[in-house]
Amino acid sequence: MTEPRRDSRWWGWGDPDVPTELGEAAERMLGERGISTGADASPPEIDRVEIPEAVPVDERVLSAAGAENVFTGNEDRIRHANGQNYLDLLELREGRLQHAPDAVIVADSGPRIAAILEACASAGVAVVPFGGGSSVVGGVTPLKGDHESVISLDLAGLRGIEVDDRSLTAKLGAGLRGPEAEALLAERGFTLGHYPQSFEYATIGGFAATRSAGQSSSGYGRFDSLVSSIRLITPEGELSTLSTPHTSIGPALREVVVGSEGILGVIPDVDVRIRPLPAARRYEAWIVEDFEAGCEIVRGLAQADRLPTIIRVSDDSETEVNLAMALPSGAAGSLFRRYLKLRGREGGALVITGYEGSPAAVHRSRSDVAREIRRGGGVYLGQAAGKGWEKGRFHGPYLREALLERGVLVETLETAQQWSGHRNLYETVRAALKSELAANGMEGIVMCHLSHAYRDGASLYFTVISTQGPDGGAANWPKVKRAACAAIQSAGGTLSHHHATGRDHAPWIEGEIGTSGIEALAALKERFDPSGIMNPGKLLDASRAGSDPPSR
Amino acid sequence: MTEPRRDSRWWGWGDPDVPTELGEAAERMLGERGISTGADASPPEIDRVEIPEAVPVDERVLSAAGAENVFTGNEDRIRHANGQNYLDLLELREGRLQHAPDAVIVADSGPRIAAILEACASAGVAVVPFGGGSSVVGGVTPLKGDHESVISLDLAGLRGIEVDDRSLTAKLGAGLRGPEAEALLAERGFTLGHYPQSFEYATIGGFAATRSAGQSSSGYGRFDSLVSSIRLITPEGELSTLSTPHTSIGPALREVVVGSEGILGVIPDVDVRIRPLPAARRYEAWIVEDFEAGCEIVRGLAQADRLPTIIRVSDDSETEVNLAMALPSGAAGSLFRRYLKLRGREGGALVITGYEGSPAAVHRSRSDVAREIRRGGGVYLGQAAGKGWEKGRFHGPYLREALLERGVLVETLETAQQWSGHRNLYETVRAALKSELAANGMEGIVMCHLSHAYRDGASLYFTVISTQGPDGGAANWPKVKRAACAAIQSAGGTLSHHHATGRDHAPWIEGEIGTSGIEALAALKERFDPSGIMNPGKLLDASRAGSDPPSR
Repeated sequence: MTEPRRDSRWWGWGDPDVPTELGEAAERMLGERGISTGADASPPEIDRVEIPEAVPVDERVLSAAGAENVFTGNEDRIRHANGQNYLDLLELREGRLQHAPDAVIVADSGPRIAAILEACASAGVAVVPFGGGSSVVGGVTPLKGDHESVISLDLAGLRGIEVDDRSLTAKLGAGLRGPEAEALLAERGFTLGHYPQSFEYATIGGFAATRSAGQSSSGYGRFDSLVSSIRLITPEGELSTLSTPHTSIGPALREVVVGSEGILGVIPDVDVRIRPLPAARRYEAWIVEDFEAGCEIVRGLAQADRLPTIIRVSDDSETEVNLAMALPSGAAGSLFRRYLKLRGREGGALVITGYEGSPAAVHRSRSDVAREIRRGGGVYLGQAAGKGWEKGRFHGPYLREALLERGVLVETLETAQQWSGHRNLYETVRAALKSELAANGMEGIVMCHLSHAYRDGASLYFTVISTQGPDGGAANWPKVKRAACAAIQSAGGTLSHHHATGRDHAPWIEGEIGTSGIEALAALKERFDPSGIMNPGKLLDASRAGSDPPSR
Repeated sequence: MTEPRRDSRWWGWGDPDVPTELGEAAERMLGERGISTGADASPPEIDRVEIPEAVPVDERVLSAAGAENVFTGNEDRIRHANGQNYLDLLELREGRLQHAPDAVIVADSGPRIAAILEACASAGVAVVPFGGGSSVVGGVTPLKGDHESVISLDLAGLRGIEVDDRSLTAKLGAGLRGPEAEALLAERGFTLGHYPQSFEYATIGGFAATRSAGQSSSGYGRFDSLVSSIRLITPEGELSTLSTPHTSIGPALREVVVGSEGILGVIPDVDVRIRPLPAARRYEAWIVEDFEAGCEIVRGLAQADRLPTIIRVSDDSETEVNLAMALPSGAAGSLFRRYLKLRGREGGALVITGYEGSPAAVHRSRSDVAREIRRGGGVYLGQAAGKGWEKGRFHGPYLREALLERGVLVETLETAQQWSGHRNLYETVRAALKSELAANGMEGIVMCHLSHAYRDGASLYFTVISTQGPDGGAANWPKVKRAACAAIQSAGGTLSHHHATGRDHAPWIEGEIGTSGIEALAALKERFDPSGIMNPGKLLDASRAGSDPPSR
């Protein structure tokens, strides 16, 4: 028996022992920008949280799951009720949950999952696969669809590993969190190299189900490219792909399972491509004239196949905020500013580069990249600033907790485009966000970075930090998000480069994949989940999930 | 109006002006191995070829296509009746065709294709999309399925190009042949870098529909990785994917269209990732102790991310045949053999490496690779031998014509596996081929090379050259092919690394993708091609195409 994990804050992100103080620099930064921090918005005690009454678990499901694997206590239900988007976190802090699973069932094997899905299909119980619960697009919200009850199927019992050190592949259990998977691999001398900001809690299964990308994906590859083969247990049988480096036997079914976001079935384990642990690592920071100059440097590196393991460029606004929050107000800070000024930089755009691999490979890549950044007008800020980024690379969600605690709205969204439309996408989305904040009386900052680059284009990751506005964040954020989605689509961007569709983007996907794209997904869903129990309301629009596909 | 192309041999491969003499060296090599060359097996005059009588084209189809685009002459029907596998070529040379399209229709635009498919669906006419006709797995055989007639939809009218030189992408018409696409790109300073052996006739649409891989795919990427976005015109509407470097919005529908082999619809054009024309190229040859040593060198390079643009290792048998056929029998040949012997090599495995890119990149990659090959015991054979390979890289099919002309059976098949099962796959398939040849009284050579390598595994490409055996090639080859497929599947290989499924592998795919995999494809087919007109009998087993999916 494996219990559901209870080691993070139930009301939000992270280890409860890591403090979430806002700090003097951040307070000053917010103050200077008119973002007033409000009263303490701490969550209530967990036993005072209001949640929907649980529907008793159907006997067939109970028997398929094994009674010892079924958890119906309020704490477990609350911990599986929300993901980690702004509205999720707001709701948790307010202590009144709209949705909660009727039970949490911990799965410990493939056959057990198959039995549970079969029982749920018979009993008409919706199933939400649950890994780390770190979705920021409503991917784990326990919606019932047309059903009477819903369970959260927690994959915490699936944490196995098998390594093939000749093929450099590993079979990893879907329930392994990022650090667990890396620790098991590291014992054997390997790494997966997948480090999204959600790394500490997100799981292998979730990486696959959402087409995750990590901070080091320029070097190690996005998660989809790391998947060598995959299994999917559906209510109507198991789909598994051959472990081959490539095949030309028909459409790539692996790419249908990757990104399926729980609507077709459950991914119990994933065969991934691994690498030897890097012997050397080097992180450093640069400042370039502005965001556009930084993006051009990245484009040049990408198109010359010279990307380092990590490269990210913050726009001028994010750079300013980063520097304001990271730099002490005193002597060191002003010295640093004077150093930049002497080199002709006042403001500008921060570039972080990271190199991992053999010492020779790191040295070589670093020389190539540094030369190109200098050629593009970059000023070297040294390894300390790079190490600072590396040290804080998973800290964003903690800072977010601190901001939420003070009533500040903070949310992110991301997209990608080909280089020819990249600048326009940046400007269009930024303008839409700013204008919608203003229209709703919200005082805020819109900042952005590029963190995933390719030969043909790159991602854009926006962060909004603002007051909640007169109508409150719960009313206002959806308007801002809608404006952003509309702007993204008008500028030809994707709704999400690596956060997936979930519930939040589902209403928009017809604009991205077209009617025929929806029909393709609906056809697969009908075949593998004819009773529509799998993760209702996600990926496909809620109104369509489990129902007839739209007519053309 | 575009006419169907009539510039290749109607009975087989290539430019009719390129001679297909077997040559003295090849004759000697065959003789030494007991492969008797027989009487002249030349094809008859084209007007003596027997083909099935044509069913008149339905009025609705004629009107949708435009009468001027419909070709019903025997030459065009014969030119669209077969692909290029051994049985196809044997049949053409015998001059009695089992199948032929009732008409050849040349498509010149997306809307025209949509209209044609709609008319064919109404009229119950099967449609076989036709690019270069170079399928070696029966992908273009004009089967009718449950329908009364069949057309070959020739995409020769779709040859446009649009380049985005900032994103390094190009929209290429599906009907562009390899050299046409490269010429259009080269005028603008770019290359696609996709060079399968079928390059001279194969088309962009075909590359996408079959998940093609080329000789330079280690450097430029397989065709699927070059596709940035794609369109598919189906009888039930158009599916098109967003031009984005990456998206996490659901399963990758691009990967459903790529590899769809014409069973869901027609690919009118493909957006591909392109590169600047390489400023430098260097090809060279090495000899290593044996095939296993060569494969280990490639594994080391692949796992260290040091693969050159091209790397291929011939097994001992292929090396022997290559050297026997390439080397003059006289003084130079024996000098060369003495040179090898002095360096401790008698026999061994030939390795070809190719480097393309900037002079600096070529130099750097070459140093890395040469060091590793030397470390693995390789002896350098110089650039002349490499250039020889490069010069003859598309010549294989011509040599095949020469062999067929003399009644010799020649066919290829290929597979791939992870490194941990790679050697076993090689030995299992090779033993099965040899044993099946012997069982049927065929005297022959089985040779193999590795030409596509990855971090986790590599391809294996087998060539069989043999006598036809007492029962004749048409009766014997299917037995040999069956033995090979069974051996591949028993050793965990894929049925095809880059030749696709077509008609030949369709009966075997359940062993590769499972019942659920077939169900997934059948669900998509039912949705987009409910009347089952699209390329019947390919990819999905003939008995299933257009009918109900198999029950589980």
